[in-house]
Amino acid sequence: MIGLETYRVSAQALADYEVTFSDDILDRASPELATCGNRTETRSRRRIAVLDESVNALYGTRIREYFEWHGLECQYVVLPPGEQHKVMETVLTVIAEFDRFGLDRRREPVISFGGGVLLDLVGVATSMYRRGVPHVRVPTTLLGQVDAAIGAKTGINHGAHKNRLGSFQQPAGVLLDRRFLASLDERHLRNGMAEIVKLAVVRDERLFELLEEHGELLIEERFQGSSPTGERVARQVLHRSVQGMLAELEPNLWERELDRLVDFGHSVGPALEMRADGELLHGETVAIDIALFTTVAASRGVLDDKAGRRILELLHRLALPTDHHLLDGDLLRRAMTDTVRHRDGRQRLPVPVGIGAATFLNDVSDEELRSALRHRRREAVPT
Amino acid sequence: MIGLETYRVSAQALADYEVTFSDDILDRASPELATCGNRTETRSRRRIAVLDESVNALYGTRIREYFEWHGLECQYVVLPPGEQHKVMETVLTVIAEFDRFGLDRRREPVISFGGGVLLDLVGVATSMYRRGVPHVRVPTTLLGQVDAAIGAKTGINHGAHKNRLGSFQQPAGVLLDRRFLASLDERHLRNGMAEIVKLAVVRDERLFELLEEHGELLIEERFQGSSPTGERVARQVLHRSVQGMLAELEPNLWERELDRLVDFGHSVGPALEMRADGELLHGETVAIDIALFTTVAASRGVLDDKAGRRILELLHRLALPTDHHLLDGDLLRRAMTDTVRHRDGRQRLPVPVGIGAATFLNDVSDEELRSALRHRRREAVPT
Ligand SMILES: NC(=O)c1ccc[n+]([C@@H]2O[C@H](COP(=O)([O-])OP(=O)(O)OC[C@H]3O[C@@H](n4cnc5c(N)ncnc54)[C@H](O)[C@@H]3O)[C@@H](O)[C@H]2O)c1
Ligand SMILES: NC(=O)c1ccc[n+]([C@@H]2O[C@H](COP(=O)([O-])OP(=O)(O)OC[C@H]3O[C@@H](n4cnc5c(N)ncnc54)[C@H](O)[C@@H]3O)[C@@H](O)[C@H]2O)c1
Repeated sequence: MIGLETYRVSAQALADYEVTFSDDILDRASPELATCGNRTETRSRRRIAVLDESVNALYGTRIREYFEWHGLECQYVVLPPGEQHKVMETVLTVIAEFDRFGLDRRREPVISFGGGVLLDLVGVATSMYRRGVPHVRVPTTLLGQVDAAIGAKTGINHGAHKNRLGSFQQPAGVLLDRRFLASLDERHLRNGMAEIVKLAVVRDERLFELLEEHGELLIEERFQGSSPTGERVARQVLHRSVQGMLAELEPNLWERELDRLVDFGHSVGPALEMRADGELLHGETVAIDIALFTTVAASRGVLDDKAGRRILELLHRLALPTDHHLLDGDLLRRAMTDTVRHRDGRQRLPVPVGIGAATFLNDVSDEELRSALRHRRREAVPT
Repeated sequence: MIGLETYRVSAQALADYEVTFSDDILDRASPELATCGNRTETRSRRRIAVLDESVNALYGTRIREYFEWHGLECQYVVLPPGEQHKVMETVLTVIAEFDRFGLDRRREPVISFGGGVLLDLVGVATSMYRRGVPHVRVPTTLLGQVDAAIGAKTGINHGAHKNRLGSFQQPAGVLLDRRFLASLDERHLRNGMAEIVKLAVVRDERLFELLEEHGELLIEERFQGSSPTGERVARQVLHRSVQGMLAELEPNLWERELDRLVDFGHSVGPALEMRADGELLHGETVAIDIALFTTVAASRGVLDDKAGRRILELLHRLALPTDHHLLDGDLLRRAMTDTVRHRDGRQRLPVPVGIGAATFLNDVSDEELRSALRHRRREAVPT
């Protein structure tokens, strides 16, 4: 008889990447875009650039000129915008382009230009192809710059579920250039603001105050710093957001720990986003989720009324939604079931306990959620 | 102007799993299968078992009885066997079953029973679903037990390319039970032997000698130890193989280093396997690749003739192929192009320099390969 014998395999992976704020990366004189993600011994002059259609229309010429000037042989792939394209079919389209190009494993970075949708889906493609090829992310939306682009998550929607398939794959590099935001429409600017509000509420009171004071100015100026105050605050808000987000992500890059503050806004939001089927943007559902769980926290008394009101007021001031007609008791129940599955059998609901501080709840009943929802609907917009 | 500012993200992940040799894991008294992969705080009694159709026919009843006896509520998914099913379509079928089940993120391990094909494709599904759910692997083929199941690689074929899509995902656990090999047909036993020969050639002379002396006995007895010698050697060979393979994989689990000894047998083999389209098994192409690069090494004089002959003799003795009519100059060239792409612009060709030792070549010309091929064809089977 063979006894029981066990071999233990134990190995450490290092994720190591840089998130770089840079001014006008499409300027020939900026080297970042040409060199990013190409740190292997055997360099190559070939690249694939994947562009969101709108980004291509606005910046395609400059992007092509940049690569040409730097002597890089680049294949361009343009993808249609929209959350409905964040699915496996599009991933396979991208992969077909990798095949056509004959993509190397390590030395020919794929460079993506677009919002969270494009970055997430190219992230899935690059994490699967040859079990991982380097991916340089150039986020062109506010939400992309402060959130989607800077962590390790990739994802596509599948069936009725938001981000059901994906991976953790660190980017080869992330280049942040707020000039792209100059062409972003107001709704998408506000949408990105929602993720900043989220972060401010759970960990950064100063950031929250900056948004209270200057949020509207930032949107008006599209973070381009048309006025001295706008310039100063745009810098501050972008840096605090990225720094705060990375501080949350870095020690937990692969989400071993499921009590995550940055899941604030993402407890019932994803289910609502899928249900609303294009009617609501990602950040808008984050705002609605923030409003709901702020109300839960206030009703329980873990958050004082004044702080609760400040959070809701900020959302209103940024013209973000705090409710939606599709959010009902049934959706809440189904959303919570899936969220609990995703959080290993526990609710782990982040809720604010003040401005810049949060805790986790694990015993919120369906009735408590429905009551918070009713409460939100009864309440007039606070002014 | 905003200056250049960079945030560095640096994080370490620990991969940690156990490969356990166990006697008769389907025996009610063996706890491994019931507990494996379920180490989270919030345990669940639910499981999904994915079974290769042949394995289901042979062991399905015992597997069901086992889970039932242990009070586990298990959903069964049976997949058709064959390399042609190792594709995205099958992965999506498996994922649909996860959805139907309502699979948790951490506490409801997916348990796979099958050969390398099934383990590889369920590996892709589990690595994508919720960005990774736990996967317990129970390899039921020799090749699975000594190779496919014990590392971190998952993969599916795509387009004309072998394992073009996949991931590195450590298993939640691996359970090795050689009793499954009792029902494996001879061709698949020999097929698994090829990966053992590979490992023996590049790093374990003693293992090589064991195969020379007892290889045929092992196949005859299907590793079941019908004779005292067969029993002793079966244990030794399985343990040395697993130990040696893990020693190669563990320090390089994510393949940062691309000079990999275990790539011996996998330089032109994968292209041949895809080209032969089911006519050749994976291990058979490994054997052909071993023969070719052994000849390259001998022709160069880095390997002495006697050792070269021993390697070829062992392959012949195990009735493994050392050539195939579809392997021609054109295929060799295309295979090398893709292999170089996969190895970051270098050939990194592992070749033996003795029995149990190898080196890497980076300057093998097309002509040298064609000449080795001609040489192999001219040469009579050595006896
Ligand atoms: N991976 C993560 O960690 C993470 C985090 C948060 C959100 N996300 C995902 O991000 C997605 C949302 O991203 P998003 O808000 O950036 O949406 P998006 O990618 O759909 O972009 C929004 C719109 O802006 C257009 N656009 C992009 N850049 C532009 C520019 N510079 N000028 C003008 N128009 C431009 C696009 O064509 C699109 O129509 C969601 O799918 C969400 O799940 C991912
Ligand atoms: N992930 C890795 O690191 C890795 C390493 C090596 C090989 N592989 C992959 O493994 C695959 C080959 O695996 P394989 O050789 O196990 O082939 P396989 O999975 O196709 O199994 C071979 C055959 O044996 C049958 N079978 C399985 N278990 C049986 C049993 N106990 N009794 C009777 N019949 C049984 C199957 O139905 C199948 O017909 C290839 O696709 C190869 O790429 C992966």
